[in-house]
Amino acid sequence: MADATPIRPLSADQVQTWHHEADVVVAGFGIAGVSAAIEAARAGADVLVLERTSGWGGAAALAGGFIYLGGGTPLQKALGFEDSPENMKAFMMAALGPGADEEKITDYCNGSVEHYNWLVDNGVPFKESFYGQPGWETPFDDGLMYSGGENAAPFNSVATAAPRGHVPQMTGKRTGEKGGGFMLMKPLVETAEKLGVRHEYDMRVQRLIVDGDRVVGIVAKHYGKEVAVRARTGVVLATGSFAYNKEMVQNYAPRLIGKPGASIEEHDGKAIQMAQAIGADLAHMDATEVAFFGDPQLMVRGILVNARGQRYVNEDTYPGRIGQETLLRNDNQAYLIIDESAYEEGCAADSSTPFFRFQPKWVAETVEELESDMGLPAGTLVSTVDVYNRHAENGEDPVLGKKSEWCKPIGSPIAALDLRNFTAGFTLGGLRTTINSEVLHVSGEPIPGLFAAGRCTSGVCAGGYASGTSLGDGSFYGRRAGISAAKG
Amino acid sequence: MADATPIRPLSADQVQTWHHEADVVVAGFGIAGVSAAIEAARAGADVLVLERTSGWGGAAALAGGFIYLGGGTPLQKALGFEDSPENMKAFMMAALGPGADEEKITDYCNGSVEHYNWLVDNGVPFKESFYGQPGWETPFDDGLMYSGGENAAPFNSVATAAPRGHVPQMTGKRTGEKGGGFMLMKPLVETAEKLGVRHEYDMRVQRLIVDGDRVVGIVAKHYGKEVAVRARTGVVLATGSFAYNKEMVQNYAPRLIGKPGASIEEHDGKAIQMAQAIGADLAHMDATEVAFFGDPQLMVRGILVNARGQRYVNEDTYPGRIGQETLLRNDNQAYLIIDESAYEEGCAADSSTPFFRFQPKWVAETVEELESDMGLPAGTLVSTVDVYNRHAENGEDPVLGKKSEWCKPIGSPIAALDLRNFTAGFTLGGLRTTINSEVLHVSGEPIPGLFAAGRCTSGVCAGGYASGTSLGDGSFYGRRAGISAAKG
Repeated sequence: MADATPIRPLSADQVQTWHHEADVVVAGFGIAGVSAAIEAARAGADVLVLERTSGWGGAAALAGGFIYLGGGTPLQKALGFEDSPENMKAFMMAALGPGADEEKITDYCNGSVEHYNWLVDNGVPFKESFYGQPGWETPFDDGLMYSGGENAAPFNSVATAAPRGHVPQMTGKRTGEKGGGFMLMKPLVETAEKLGVRHEYDMRVQRLIVDGDRVVGIVAKHYGKEVAVRARTGVVLATGSFAYNKEMVQNYAPRLIGKPGASIEEHDGKAIQMAQAIGADLAHMDATEVAFFGDPQLMVRGILVNARGQRYVNEDTYPGRIGQETLLRNDNQAYLIIDESAYEEGCAADSSTPFFRFQPKWVAETVEELESDMGLPAGTLVSTVDVYNRHAENGEDPVLGKKSEWCKPIGSPIAALDLRNFTAGFTLGGLRTTINSEVLHVSGEPIPGLFAAGRCTSGVCAGGYASGTSLGDGSFYGRRAGISAAKG
Repeated sequence: MADATPIRPLSADQVQTWHHEADVVVAGFGIAGVSAAIEAARAGADVLVLERTSGWGGAAALAGGFIYLGGGTPLQKALGFEDSPENMKAFMMAALGPGADEEKITDYCNGSVEHYNWLVDNGVPFKESFYGQPGWETPFDDGLMYSGGENAAPFNSVATAAPRGHVPQMTGKRTGEKGGGFMLMKPLVETAEKLGVRHEYDMRVQRLIVDGDRVVGIVAKHYGKEVAVRARTGVVLATGSFAYNKEMVQNYAPRLIGKPGASIEEHDGKAIQMAQAIGADLAHMDATEVAFFGDPQLMVRGILVNARGQRYVNEDTYPGRIGQETLLRNDNQAYLIIDESAYEEGCAADSSTPFFRFQPKWVAETVEELESDMGLPAGTLVSTVDVYNRHAENGEDPVLGKKSEWCKPIGSPIAALDLRNFTAGFTLGGLRTTINSEVLHVSGEPIPGLFAAGRCTSGVCAGGYASGTSLGDGSFYGRRAGISAAKG
């Protein structure tokens, strides 16, 4: 992609023509952008959204739609789950770190119930039903699910388990018609439009326009032509992650090289770089979500082992945690060991992810045979299964804490699924922001006129992940960005 | 530390008095700074070094002194080791990644023999003797040692093993009089002084001075008073890592929180931030060296297990690799399992690190007893020892590839050393630079007038580490920075 426009800021006094103008200019019409636009408009601002593609939606509209909410939302309460902001915070600090931003997480937990109500008030539908099966997503239209391993080791001993994956009610999920992300975005975009939010599509943002230290606009390309957009009170950056910027991935999160996933190719990191060019600070640039293409219904009924034949993660936890443990700490090497009856039971189970269901690569009558067929060193897999079975007989897993209901000895015949190099992910690092979504200069002070939210920022995740935290902090801090930008 | 001076750049037209002036101004009088100063002076530049403390040395003078060199240095050849730039590169790309800068590593390997000769020509002494024992450092005055696991799995199958840890000949090491780092720095500083390099001590650099996009000087504080220093052709940043900047560690490399080590408290990341403030790009900010305070002579004679009683690293490799595996991938949990005779043999062995020698915490007659005493789940440690012994009987370690000479079955009585939370480290990420030590703007272009080297830059290490790579790329790219800065 030839792109000769420099990324360095343009001084306002160099602008000859202002092609567009608004109080608040939002770059990106995904979840963070639409949330910013709504709140800025409600605060009385004239709002213009610039979107690179030819329509609203961003990665959000293609996503499963989880929004991480808790602390006692009406949906949690209606479904009988107790939670509190403190309990939610205890989980998030343990699961999303180390290095998680405590101020941001505290703020996010304290505001979570209000944020749920805001979404509902803006037309986002949540069905009062809970999906309790192992899985990545709800297979049908259920509104609530565990989405971060809250009810599994080690976090179930850190905080009281509560499901916080809130999913907008969807239709036609199995055929991909209207997923949760679409059902999240559609009412929010309609709300924005009702509020008079304007948009310009096919606008690729290029560089910030500054007046001294203050950001006063943005240069974009519209079908190859440069246009200057003036922001009277503030610019909001909401253009997503850098998962598709190969050089940035190489320089910051190299384990993701060649494995971008669950994000869209527009996620090129440009907004991060535009802000860096005026001294914006960064945080947690190595952090990555990691999807793992093993079927949770099968994983939970077997044991996952690494290239040394050792277990390394409790198989009943959030599959994104399994993905991170596999890619980041076990060299992307994983096998699922499962006996025939468990495999059949898993295949028959209600599952949200039938396309993750693979055939075993190896099948044997004994663990010794399987170990040999897989090329694992003699004794490794045998001893792993022996130790697992010894405790599973008593419904226990003292090694990794898998819940009792899933602890069953592995019998014969036995199989192994080859789950090596079965990961993909997106980046979680980005601009360092305050709880008011101000972009921080490396000096520690906010950059006047510049705000950001969503995956171009470092949000509530420092290293760990839970499904729904991206749409969660994107919408939560998108709103803050809109409010702050309207004030200027 | 109250420090009201802003970090944002100062425009040259705001400078009222230039207190000092030189062609090349170098910030930091450690290994990168002195190397830059020498080469800039040799290129005909008038050079001024600004140093924060009251004397030369930096972290380098306190370090063990390893310089990572290879490709067939005269010292390698004299001691009978074959190496080539290609072989060196194969190791470095495998051991220092993922995401390692191939252009930089290729350049570094190709220039390594010349760099060795440059050090010798400038008075750095290397004794023609090889130290082949397991250890962190040479205990006496030997000049060459394995310092990155080149002769251990998995890298001994990637490249032909060659030792590349070159250590300046030291005296009085056991009493700390003149370590290798001191013996590296002293002749280089003397060389610089002979070349007319000037220095100003007690100068804390604060912010860059710019003329448009060009860096033309630096503001420093001298006993609380701000002084402006003009650089006619270039500024070289060489002020070390950010290991002692708590906020940066929290934001970029949180597993190091509370564990800064092998660096000095002056390593506050300031130069990184000063350059960020004018749009400098970063790389690999999460990368960390990790020291591990287990005695290599004992570790190699036992097995290291994690909190699940599983082996996770071959015990005969570079201890810094053991440190990274322990801290970054095994939650800083490690135990050394060793039998009595191996423990006694290890304690009697020649060792560079007697202060790492700890007493066992648990001692038992059988593995079952030890496992129980340690509180490990039943069967875990027993099966780990069983599998290890089964193969060690044949002098093999198919699980982790420990070399045959160290594979001996573990007998009785048996002990465990508690090596949990026994790590410390320093940061490896920083400014993104070219092979000419130009600091890259986030646009991808060099920032005119600004150069950097050493641990305030991202050098040859993207994630992995080998002892000597910091003094190695610091001196190598310090020289380049001096040459580039003299040209301007």
